[in-house]
This record gives sequence, structure tokens and C-alpha cells, in this order.
Amino acid sequence: MYKIDVPESSIPRVVIIGGGFGGLKLAKTLRNKEVQVVLIDKNNYHTFQPLLYQVATAGLEPDAIAFPIRKIFKTYENFYFRLAEVEGIDRETNKIITNIGELSFDFLVLATGSKTNYFGNQQIQKLGMPLKTVVQALDLRSLMLQNFEKALLSSDINTRESRMNFVIVGGGPTGVELAGALGELKGHVLPKDYPELDVRRMQIHLVEAGPRLLTGLSNVSSEKSLAYLKKLGVNVWLNTMVKGYDGTTVEMSSGKNLYTKNLVWSAGVMGNMIDGIPKESITLGSRILVDEFNKVKGFEKFYAIGDVASMVTKETPKGHPMVAQVAIQQGENLGKNILNQIKGKAPKPFQYKDLGSMATVGRNKAVVEINKFKSQGPFAWFIWMFVHLMSLVGFKNKAVVLVNWVWNYINYDRGIRLIIRPYNRQKAEMKERGVEEESAATTISEEVG
Amino acid sequence: MYKIDVPESSIPRVVIIGGGFGGLKLAKTLRNKEVQVVLIDKNNYHTFQPLLYQVATAGLEPDAIAFPIRKIFKTYENFYFRLAEVEGIDRETNKIITNIGELSFDFLVLATGSKTNYFGNQQIQKLGMPLKTVVQALDLRSLMLQNFEKALLSSDINTRESRMNFVIVGGGPTGVELAGALGELKGHVLPKDYPELDVRRMQIHLVEAGPRLLTGLSNVSSEKSLAYLKKLGVNVWLNTMVKGYDGTTVEMSSGKNLYTKNLVWSAGVMGNMIDGIPKESITLGSRILVDEFNKVKGFEKFYAIGDVASMVTKETPKGHPMVAQVAIQQGENLGKNILNQIKGKAPKPFQYKDLGSMATVGRNKAVVEINKFKSQGPFAWFIWMFVHLMSLVGFKNKAVVLVNWVWNYINYDRGIRLIIRPYNRQKAEMKERGVEEESAATTISEEVG
Repeated sequence: MYKIDVPESSIPRVVIIGGGFGGLKLAKTLRNKEVQVVLIDKNNYHTFQPLLYQVATAGLEPDAIAFPIRKIFKTYENFYFRLAEVEGIDRETNKIITNIGELSFDFLVLATGSKTNYFGNQQIQKLGMPLKTVVQALDLRSLMLQNFEKALLSSDINTRESRMNFVIVGGGPTGVELAGALGELKGHVLPKDYPELDVRRMQIHLVEAGPRLLTGLSNVSSEKSLAYLKKLGVNVWLNTMVKGYDGTTVEMSSGKNLYTKNLVWSAGVMGNMIDGIPKESITLGSRILVDEFNKVKGFEKFYAIGDVASMVTKETPKGHPMVAQVAIQQGENLGKNILNQIKGKAPKPFQYKDLGSMATVGRNKAVVEINKFKSQGPFAWFIWMFVHLMSLVGFKNKAVVLVNWVWNYINYDRGIRLIIRPYNRQKAEMKERGVEEESAATTISEEVG
Repeated sequence: MYKIDVPESSIPRVVIIGGGFGGLKLAKTLRNKEVQVVLIDKNNYHTFQPLLYQVATAGLEPDAIAFPIRKIFKTYENFYFRLAEVEGIDRETNKIITNIGELSFDFLVLATGSKTNYFGNQQIQKLGMPLKTVVQALDLRSLMLQNFEKALLSSDINTRESRMNFVIVGGGPTGVELAGALGELKGHVLPKDYPELDVRRMQIHLVEAGPRLLTGLSNVSSEKSLAYLKKLGVNVWLNTMVKGYDGTTVEMSSGKNLYTKNLVWSAGVMGNMIDGIPKESITLGSRILVDEFNKVKGFEKFYAIGDVASMVTKETPKGHPMVAQVAIQQGENLGKNILNQIKGKAPKPFQYKDLGSMATVGRNKAVVEINKFKSQGPFAWFIWMFVHLMSLVGFKNKAVVLVNWVWNYINYDRGIRLIIRPYNRQKAEMKERGVEEESAATTISEEVG
């Protein structure tokens, strides 16, 4: 087996798998300390997932929310990035196996985040659109625009409207924000682009299995979001599950059917697991059971943080929520603990500090909760924008996003209505057969493996 | 055959194929006049080709140089856009045949521009990278970054350096500007991203068959560009042709070989022809012979403008240069002539007004020629930036490009080093077999045709 070429050194090697919120924070915490850090990701960029829905709805380009990982770490010492896909862990030898070779570790941290959970529904996995990656967001943008172009070609009114309709499954932040953004496209952008179509007939449906939207927030916020969505013309179906989808007809548990060529599935996520982890360490939602130090149960020197980790305690019987703040705080705590452990000091258990939650539905329409402070409306919207802008990596990204937001606000516009790479069903069928789109890492392995 | 659904009307229908510089200007000239305009393009956006090389070298995102066609024309009356690929013309019935159906016309204007000309070299067509479209620019960006990631994995120095080297064939504006941009990446960006690689060993070669660069400009500009490129570390090979490429070894006519995994072919363009045009109307470089009114020889009511048209006169024995200004001016003149013809007035012959030429090599390094005015250096660079910024469609695009340029200038940076969709050889092989990447238009036709 090929060995990944990273300098051998006398200081301990920390291998981090995943450059998401948790992995980045961990690597930053270990900056220029007495450890060698190797960060592995299948992409060469970090994705700011909270704004993915704006890429999908033609509001932002990928460069606004994706940041090159090498750029973040260019001044770090003893830091190495490798573009690779991790295939598994060899417990005997303390090595990870990747598509570009294997690598030994002194500390291993799994920070692979989460992926879309279809709960076994293969129809929806094949024909629905997920929204967890930049490529998926671009595909959704293309599909939406392609379907509007196709709507012009249908003389049959049902076919035409099924191309214009959207059904979004899952009333979490992604579903709510996406539905709101589509409502604004319907109101201000699409009628100008498609004067030949009766865009008023475009339907946007949001289907949620539970009794309210945004279950991570309070009832007040749920109700306000619901009101905002209704104002934007979104039909919200609570206590309703989507049971099937044949590419046009959406079967709901209520017995009612909806008709759309655009089904977005944001109703569930699951941990992004790798091979080599025993079943007894894996819990609900394909997450890894960790103790209060984020150490994987049954392993030494193997840790997991963020979405892929489940720290089951009395306060968190199902683990922590799968949100950025948990990953960031766990990354920081683990970084300190690794340094403590090397120095022979005792590690500190993880203590989650909830900094609050927020979601935006549209222009002047957002809900924010920070401890006991709750706000809805224009002020909440402003907070939402400020927090998201400031959380973006890099000054240039902040500037580009700001230019776009100001432009969109003044002009009621979403300017990036570009079909650069058309989405096609063929890909969806490959997905069904379990053939993932060829990734950079796979391409790289061709000539190495 | 399915008929494209555009309202029948008593006013004449002008069908324009292609939303490039010429097609847009023509449609704008016909704005709200007594004609129905149908614009057809295989993309839903206009591409500002002069800045494509900046997308390829991680300086700009597609949204900066691509503009949604529907957005440009949203206030036009009697205007229809269709996303389609034109397959041919039926001369008998005055109809065009597209992948979404057929359409009759009163006036037909071919404004399909040009595509890469490999002069029959299938090796290079298969393994070289062209740079004429947004997708190709993104592919080149991905390939460059993937090859640097791969370079890290090669223990063999020759393999490693072949991944870092670039060979650009063709010393026109695209070749010169791309080589200069790569020189700046080598100088300021790549060494920071890849401290493990000896980026000083990265070679950039520009190979030109003729005796000088930028043949469209004067000798002074050619020589200055050459000096600028040398300053940036680019090796320029004049009077040299590339004869073969096996994916690594570039055979030059001088007998010397170069070694690279990154070969960019910008050594030739040819008209983007469609079926149904008799051989006697087609001339050198796959362009259509037109008279001084841009009318295609042997046809009535069928015109061609821009790169795809060749107006052979005493002053232009090989037709006009294939540049944006010719297309724009022909679009405007033809628009006026169509309106004149409808009114029974005599058409005016086309008279090209050369507004000058310019090219940029790098920071403070550009050459500009406007009539007798010639400038090189920082002032020319400023003019180049100003002209290109002002030529972009839309305020938001101008603002986004400006933010990026200012950022890049201050920080010696090119921030968009993202491999969003990895480039893979498979596509190149499909290209060899004549299978073009599936376009939006093709996808749309699936369910219509």
C-alpha cells in the first residue's frame, strides 16, 4: 500500500478527517503547537453550509461560501493538507486508509460531519434533490432554471405546472430558508424572467412530519416562521410525511398528492461514517458514541467531533444537536485536551454553551433566539445577516456576499440565474446505483493507487 | 416535428441564433420595434469571453463574467428567448430545426461565434484543454489545482514537475493573458499554498507558430508583451509549432520536447457552423461568406454576423478579425438594415471602425493600441481594466469584479482556488469520441423531442 508522504517527526501526529466547522477549529487550536497536524478532506475547500440555500436560489456563487483550505492554513507550521477520501481505519496498526494511501497517527479525529438521510426511501434518493454540498446547491439551481425553461415548452397545463412547483420536505432551518427564498423568487424575479408563464400558479410546499417548524427553536419562533412563510405564499403541511415520489407525484401521509418535478429532501441527516468502526460504537443516526472528552468508546487516541459524534449524557440523551456551534466548541475543547494529554495534564470534559439559534425566511423576516433574548422581524433579520456575514471565512468572501446582498435587497433580485452545468437525470440514476459522482480525490487516486 | 411555441404575429419574425456580443447587440438594436425577436442560445447566459482566463486562473467566479440572457431583455416587448441547440436550417421552408422543435423565420441571423480549432490534431483535442466557454474555464481551474495536489503525491521528480508545468499553445490574447496570469500565480499564490513543493521549478511555456505574439497588434506591443512575459518567468517559443501531445510529452517542431500534464490549446478558432449551409457559402476557418450587408451568399433573409461570418472585401481578404468589436458593430448595422428593409429603405453596407486592441499580461503590465495612440505599462493596464470593467453587463457584475480585482491587487491573491467539480479524463475521452458534454438544451429536449 502506498504511504501518504508526510514528514516523519518526533512530535505526535494528529490526523483530522474533515475540514468542516469542527475540523477547522481543531486545527486552529493546535496552531504552531508541539504537534504535527494532517488535515484530510475530499474537497480542497471549507463549505459554509448555512448559506448553501442561497447558492441554490441564485443569490450567491460558490466562492462566497467556499474557502480554500490551503489558504486558511498557509502560515501554519507543521501543518499538512491532503485532498483524499478516507476509506477506513485499521485499529491494529493505528493507520487510516485513504484512496491516496495510508497514514499512521498518534491522534485521530473524525470530523466528517453529516450527509442526507433518506431513511431508506430509494425513490426519493433517486429523484429528490439533497442540499448538503456546494455541488448539490449548484445542481438544484440548474434544475430549477431548466424546469422553468422546460415549462415554456409544455402545452399541457399539468406538466407545465409540475415543472414550476416545488415541494420541500423537512421544516428545519434548511427547509424553511429554502422555501422562503423560493417564495421571494416567485414574487420578484421569476415573473420578470418568464412573462410567458403564469408564475402566480407556481406552488411552493413545505412538508414537515412534526407538529411545528424549526423544532430547535421555541414555539414563538416556529409560529412566526410559519406566518412569514404563509405571507410569502408557501403552503406549509405540518404533521405530514412524504411517503413516495415517482418524479412527479408526491404522496403525502394525509392522502393528498402534490405534483412537482422539483422535490427537495431536507428532512434528515445522518453521520458521515467510515469503515473500521465497530457496530457497538455506532448509535442512532449513524453517529459515533463518544465520551465527555469526545473519545470514541472502545478506542484509544481516536476521537470524533461535531455532527458525526454523539455524546450521550443525562442532558443530551440523543447527543447534541447537529449544528455548527457544537462542532466548533468540541473542536476547540478537544484541541486543548490533546495538548493537555501530551503534557500529561488531565483533560477537561466538554461543556456545550448554546449561543442561540436563528433562521431567516426572507427580506425583513427572521427569527433569532439568544439565551432568553428572542426577536422576530427586521431587527432579527439584521442580526441574522450580521452574524452570518461575520462568520464567513476571509475578508473577500464577506465583501462579495455583502455586495450581493445589498444588490439583491435594493433590486429585489437574485442575479446568478445561470445554468453552468445542467443537471441531468443520468446522474440521479448513477446515484441510485450507488455510483457517487467522481470526486477530486477519486480522480487523484487513479494514477497513484 | 414539434413546433417551438412562440406567438404568431403579423409583424416579421427575426430569429437570432447565439447570445454573444453580436447577437445581443442586434437584439438591442431591434428593441421594441415592429419586429418579433426570438433569441436562441444553448446557454441561458451571455459570456464575457475576454475575462474567461481569469475564471480559469482562480481570479473570478462565473457570475462575474456570465450574465443571464432573460435578465438583459426583461423589459423588451415582442422578445422571446429559447434555450435550445440549433441543428440546422431548412432552406425550402425557411425554418430552423432545433432540439426543442422547429421555428419559421422571416429573417434569420446566425451569430454562433467560434469554437476551438484543433486543425485535425485528435491527440490534442483529446488531451489538451480549450478555453472558449465558462465550463472549460472551470475545468481548467480544477485541472490545475488537481495537478498540484497530485504533484504532492509523486516521489518521481519528473512526474511531479510535469504536473506543475504548463504549456500554452497560441500567442494571441488568450494565450498571452493566461500565461501572464499563471506567472503571477507562480510568483505569489502557489508557493504559499504548496510550501512542500519547490514551485520555483514550475515551468510556464508559451508556444507560438508565428514570429511574434499578439499579431493583431503592432510590433511594439508584441515586443513589450514578450518582455513582460519573460519578467514573469514565462518561456516563450516563437516560430515553433506543437506537433503532438501524449498527455505528458509535448513535441515541438524545433525538435525539443516539453513535459506537462497541463496543455492549453488556444492556437486557433473556427466558425461555429450549423447544418444546412451549402459548401460554396463556407470559406476558410469554417466561416460563412457574407456580402457587405452580412447577407449569406446564395440566401435571402439569412444573415451571419461576428466570428462565424467572413466578409471578404479588398480591405479584408480573409474577412474581419474574429473579435468582439466586429460582432457588435455588425449586429448594430444589421439591426438597422433589417428595420430599413421592412420600411422599404435601402440597407447600408457594413463599415468596420477599429476601436483598438489591448491585452494584459499582469499587474501593471498591459499593452493598449487605440488608433495611433499606443501605451504600455501601468497606464495601459489601467485603461485595460477600465474598459473591461465598463464592458461587463450589469452593475452587480461590475461591482463583484471590482471587489475581486482590488482584493487581488492589494493581496497579490487569486482567491477562488476551488475544485468544485473535478475535471476527469473520462470527459476528455468522451470528447474524443465526439460525445459533447450534455448541455442544458439536450437535457431539455429529452422529454420534448
